[in-house]
Amino acid sequence: MTTMNPERLMADLYHLRSIGRHGIGVARPAFSPADMEARRWLLGRMEEAGLDASMDGVGNVIGHSRNPGTALLVGSHTDSQPTGGWLDGALGVVYALEAARVMAADSETSAFALDVVSWSDEEGTFMGTMGSKSFCEELIDSDVERALNLRTGQSLLEALKEAGLENLPLARLDPIRHIAYLEAHVEQGPYLEAEKKLLGVVTAIVGIRTFTIKFSGEQNHAGTTPMSCRKDAGMTLIKTAGLLDQELAKLAGPRSVWTVGRVVFEPGVPSVIPGKAELSLQFRDTDEAVLDRMRKGAERVVMEVNRMGPVTASIEPAFPEVAPAVMDEGIRRRLEEAAENHAPGAWNVMPSGAGHDAQVLARHIPAGMLFIPSIGGISHDIAEDTSEEDIIRGCRAFVEAARGVLEEVQSR
Amino acid sequence: MTTMNPERLMADLYHLRSIGRHGIGVARPAFSPADMEARRWLLGRMEEAGLDASMDGVGNVIGHSRNPGTALLVGSHTDSQPTGGWLDGALGVVYALEAARVMAADSETSAFALDVVSWSDEEGTFMGTMGSKSFCEELIDSDVERALNLRTGQSLLEALKEAGLENLPLARLDPIRHIAYLEAHVEQGPYLEAEKKLLGVVTAIVGIRTFTIKFSGEQNHAGTTPMSCRKDAGMTLIKTAGLLDQELAKLAGPRSVWTVGRVVFEPGVPSVIPGKAELSLQFRDTDEAVLDRMRKGAERVVMEVNRMGPVTASIEPAFPEVAPAVMDEGIRRRLEEAAENHAPGAWNVMPSGAGHDAQVLARHIPAGMLFIPSIGGISHDIAEDTSEEDIIRGCRAFVEAARGVLEEVQSR
Repeated sequence: MTTMNPERLMADLYHLRSIGRHGIGVARPAFSPADMEARRWLLGRMEEAGLDASMDGVGNVIGHSRNPGTALLVGSHTDSQPTGGWLDGALGVVYALEAARVMAADSETSAFALDVVSWSDEEGTFMGTMGSKSFCEELIDSDVERALNLRTGQSLLEALKEAGLENLPLARLDPIRHIAYLEAHVEQGPYLEAEKKLLGVVTAIVGIRTFTIKFSGEQNHAGTTPMSCRKDAGMTLIKTAGLLDQELAKLAGPRSVWTVGRVVFEPGVPSVIPGKAELSLQFRDTDEAVLDRMRKGAERVVMEVNRMGPVTASIEPAFPEVAPAVMDEGIRRRLEEAAENHAPGAWNVMPSGAGHDAQVLARHIPAGMLFIPSIGGISHDIAEDTSEEDIIRGCRAFVEAARGVLEEVQSR
Repeated sequence: MTTMNPERLMADLYHLRSIGRHGIGVARPAFSPADMEARRWLLGRMEEAGLDASMDGVGNVIGHSRNPGTALLVGSHTDSQPTGGWLDGALGVVYALEAARVMAADSETSAFALDVVSWSDEEGTFMGTMGSKSFCEELIDSDVERALNLRTGQSLLEALKEAGLENLPLARLDPIRHIAYLEAHVEQGPYLEAEKKLLGVVTAIVGIRTFTIKFSGEQNHAGTTPMSCRKDAGMTLIKTAGLLDQELAKLAGPRSVWTVGRVVFEPGVPSVIPGKAELSLQFRDTDEAVLDRMRKGAERVVMEVNRMGPVTASIEPAFPEVAPAVMDEGIRRRLEEAAENHAPGAWNVMPSGAGHDAQVLARHIPAGMLFIPSIGGISHDIAEDTSEEDIIRGCRAFVEAARGVLEEVQSR
């Protein structure tokens, strides 16, 4: 049995880091020159690995195995946050490429079909998990036409044109060929490190609910308006956010998270009582029932604030709900076997708190994910890192799990 | 005895409203074309009233009585908030002009010296109460050089040049001539209206303390970072602001006010735990001891937040302290007599929650202020208003009080 090549794996990861390098991380936001350079480099590496590689009309790079029959789709993404870590996304793509090379070189697996993919704009420079959504035909034309890079103001359509993609065909999921999807990713959180585990088999990807809570009071002079006459939207926001935090702590599951990430006071100056204010409340869990319980709790708090007055409050979804995605049990078994082989007793089953392309694919075909530890749990920051030992171990487990999935399919 | 002329008074106020009119209010921020037009119009009206009028190098318009001897300085300001009410400032200037006209026409008072002033930039487009500070030699050159219009980015020096003021001399307080300062102003608050009073004699102008409280935590992914591992600067700010509100309510005097007018979360997006956050806390009272007690309370809260961790907090003054200004007792007696004459039993003594040019003058010469009711307590908004009846009554009381002060001086 041929095994993976650690030198080749690390060389590919280091090469990817050199494209758009930013400090010890990378700056490869979707459709930037660095992102496109990384994608073109990947096309070449796929061809060298014997795959039929092409880029589609939204930037997805797909390397099709020349072998016929049912295929396992493997990959992740090579785009980054405006400035992000060197492994986020890139690790899963290079694992997938390495898996294709290993299988092709091994007579026992050389007839298996492994299709490798790097999805475009997973990080949401224009629209999160855009590439996998396009592949699964989940993109709505009007959303595509409206999508903007909020940092630069450039529209998605302009960016696609500038990147030379506008007339390319779109790759689509072939449900007859693609019988499953497998993705590896750095954990981006602290659990594996804290529990001294070397690998994580993902059970589900969290659902996300994001709300905007708006407060409407009365703007007035901070010197001449007595405390008893105020309709202070800002102070009502402060009190509401405190109550929300207490209420959600009671309703949360053991791994739920909730965040007030954004607060705006209007007009937002020291000597004016804010007349309007708003906050963003986001919470995540793998269990829809927990998410619903938390939503109802938040709505109750807002209703109570309204009842008390004098400031009025409203709560509305800020984005469409993201449903939790349960990972396929059969693929999880293959990942667990591989994890036990490469990290005996030192692996966990765990949910993913972050969104991934696997969440999109899981709505269409069986999907699975493997996590590799993140040092200090740091993510979406150039300081993100993982030890070389963990990277290599993770790749060994990934290649074995991919092989396991394909063997099971072939034996049916 | 000649009395004031209501038609002339209202005509001047309406004319001023027509310069830079904005809805039912005005837009005459300092050194804007509309502000300069109002000042030039005022120069003409002063000359017509028999005063020697001139504009100084910061835009103060001063009409000197041609009568020799000690003078009472009377006035307010004609500049406005970017968009503000038609009476704020303008009322006090037109009252002063009317007082000069009434006194000149009355043989009993025509020898009295009443100097009329419209101070520049009371509203702080570049620097609050700039004109009166310049007049009292309180301006620091380096502050003048650094001052900017935060809305347009224009520097004060550029604005003075553009307004044609750069080479004009600066008017200065003459402590031999100017034996006192008297100002009328709309209340800008709800007290007179709520208590069904028609006039307010100001006892003191509040002191102001403004602080910036900064929170430093750790920015992280809102999906992958467990609640127990977070160093959430935003949620710590929320809790601290709630504690501050409770603590200051305990320490406040009966008329103290405190405001959190500005809150910033960084990076301020729904799915990132804020790594940094800051708020502005401002409180006001006429009693330095109360202000000190409130400051110590705020510092204790911040110290306790730091002790609890894991987010660190700091508190620093955001601006220099503004000391409370006590109004002169002799002038208050004259104002109280006039108030009782024109609104028997229907006037209050009261502090001013807003800052005024009288606060600056009071540090140098005896000063007094008369308040006229504001409908609904609305201020710094185009909806600000006062009934014509209240405007006319206020002017009668003001003219009488000014005469009273001058008579007392003459009789010494």
